[in-house]
Amino acid sequence: MGATGAVGQQMKEQLEKRDFPVGTIKFLASSRSAGQEIEFKGKTYRVEEATPESFEGVDIALFSAGGSISEQFAPEAVKRGAVVIDNTSAFRMNEDVPLVVPEVNPEDIGKHNGIIANPNCSTIQMVCALQPLKDQFGLGKIVVSTYQAVSGAGVGAINELKEQAAADFDHAKDAEAKMLPVKSAERHYPIAFNAIPQIDKFTDNGYTFEEMKMINETKKIMHDEKLAVAATCVRLPVVTGHSESVYVELEAAPTVEEVKQAIANAPGVELMDDPSNQVYPMPLMAAGLDEVFVGRIRQDLDNPRGFHMWVVSDNLVKGAALNSVQIAESMIQQNII
Amino acid sequence: MGATGAVGQQMKEQLEKRDFPVGTIKFLASSRSAGQEIEFKGKTYRVEEATPESFEGVDIALFSAGGSISEQFAPEAVKRGAVVIDNTSAFRMNEDVPLVVPEVNPEDIGKHNGIIANPNCSTIQMVCALQPLKDQFGLGKIVVSTYQAVSGAGVGAINELKEQAAADFDHAKDAEAKMLPVKSAERHYPIAFNAIPQIDKFTDNGYTFEEMKMINETKKIMHDEKLAVAATCVRLPVVTGHSESVYVELEAAPTVEEVKQAIANAPGVELMDDPSNQVYPMPLMAAGLDEVFVGRIRQDLDNPRGFHMWVVSDNLVKGAALNSVQIAESMIQQNII
Repeated sequence: MGATGAVGQQMKEQLEKRDFPVGTIKFLASSRSAGQEIEFKGKTYRVEEATPESFEGVDIALFSAGGSISEQFAPEAVKRGAVVIDNTSAFRMNEDVPLVVPEVNPEDIGKHNGIIANPNCSTIQMVCALQPLKDQFGLGKIVVSTYQAVSGAGVGAINELKEQAAADFDHAKDAEAKMLPVKSAERHYPIAFNAIPQIDKFTDNGYTFEEMKMINETKKIMHDEKLAVAATCVRLPVVTGHSESVYVELEAAPTVEEVKQAIANAPGVELMDDPSNQVYPMPLMAAGLDEVFVGRIRQDLDNPRGFHMWVVSDNLVKGAALNSVQIAESMIQQNII
Repeated sequence: MGATGAVGQQMKEQLEKRDFPVGTIKFLASSRSAGQEIEFKGKTYRVEEATPESFEGVDIALFSAGGSISEQFAPEAVKRGAVVIDNTSAFRMNEDVPLVVPEVNPEDIGKHNGIIANPNCSTIQMVCALQPLKDQFGLGKIVVSTYQAVSGAGVGAINELKEQAAADFDHAKDAEAKMLPVKSAERHYPIAFNAIPQIDKFTDNGYTFEEMKMINETKKIMHDEKLAVAATCVRLPVVTGHSESVYVELEAAPTVEEVKQAIANAPGVELMDDPSNQVYPMPLMAAGLDEVFVGRIRQDLDNPRGFHMWVVSDNLVKGAALNSVQIAESMIQQNII
């Protein structure tokens, strides 16, 4: 559902690449995109307009077409026996909906009531890096500042960055802007050669919804309501690939080598940390790849339990499409479907 | 000294704009730039090649031509009776050299022994925002993640960003790179559509020199060797204007309104914080302006003594040229010269 969008396309590619055991597949979208053609494993499919009946006979429905579409169609799919893996924020914080990153809490998948939610992109990559530290050293406080790509705001935002970056460099501040920080917001700002400290709209407490997602989703995924998480989310002129400067206080006081080893051994995570050779992750190089890359791991100079790290991943891949497909794979492995 | 560089030009403009009481002025540079012409207050000056004798009869010498030039010529200037205000990192951590931000520690100017150091750009804007909080609430721990512009790496880096941004958007990762993260480093990475978590070279402890500058300079300027400061410094595809995501733990637990009021009343700092109208500082809009802008002020959700803020300023203006000229002004006000 949402087959023609940026994430939908990535989902299709992940299903192909990972050789997911597909019996039959259908590609659904709104009436606007219906009729387009999609190639899947050498066969051409016509995108169908979604109706409640589209979900008859479906085992797993991957949704990535926006929150309101999920709210409308996910219950219809569930009613017809499908398990919905939803990439929107519509159901993430519902108590009866598991919020899953397979490297972190695969055991939650079995508790589903028809819907399994895929977390926010910036949350996914952070919890992948935090989970091995939680397992081995225990987590105290987390303070994260994000460096997020425009692809998280859709294809329109990518095009806007492209146009602004190619236009008059010396007047970047006067560039036309319609998409960011939020398409439906009152005010828009250019993103080329800029950094916008707003992703999603503001909540009443002065935090943005994006920041509150990182805070609340992390607690839910890690099963720790008391986990202290603070986030500042910032949009950058980067096409794809979110970066995060993460400060974490652990319960134990390991050496920096022990922290690096824990990261290196974690599933889905790749240690990329060799300052003497200028090796560290960067979004431009992480785009298109599956892994969560972690580098710049340093012990805090004032607190032996404090560590800093730099976490980078493709927000459309592990941050969205790959994680959804991995949830589906885990359902099969756990005989949940 | 260094009159033709980006900061040198800004210094000249600040001296004009602020009507600094100039008797005579000379513009010095290396032999490479000597002979160029500079307009100052309606008069044309020819840039002279610096020699030790250039500083005969000079009261105040503003240096901004790189650390090795300062090491070579600053002692010669001091020997001839000039007070050197040095914008490089050459002398900043010397015990007998005051490191000054006039809004924070003007009293240190009088302790000079011929040289007064101008702090690193990213340090200056942060301490301007922290000082009112220190005065009213006391400072505990500080964790900062920076979002730094390429102009801090010189005109060559600006041109490289410009070329990369205008070139093939889809192959940004293969763009030619020679300037960043550090011109003299082994490896170079494209900055357009990227974020590079390295500014300056690495020290042995895994932190970069830029990060250690922020840590050590902040302690020195604020007269608190025990102040816990942690920094992660990241270069962005922004031309001018550094941004900083700052988490600060205070000794007191004020309300967020009290913190905002303290920032609003601080000299050189402008509160720009109205989330309901999407008002917050951004580097593209701060470029060319004198102020340190602070927004996104929020209380930590887990710690009533913890606050988050977003601090933006022009790294060439308050981060360099303006601060140097303000030091000179403060010398006059304090009758130190």
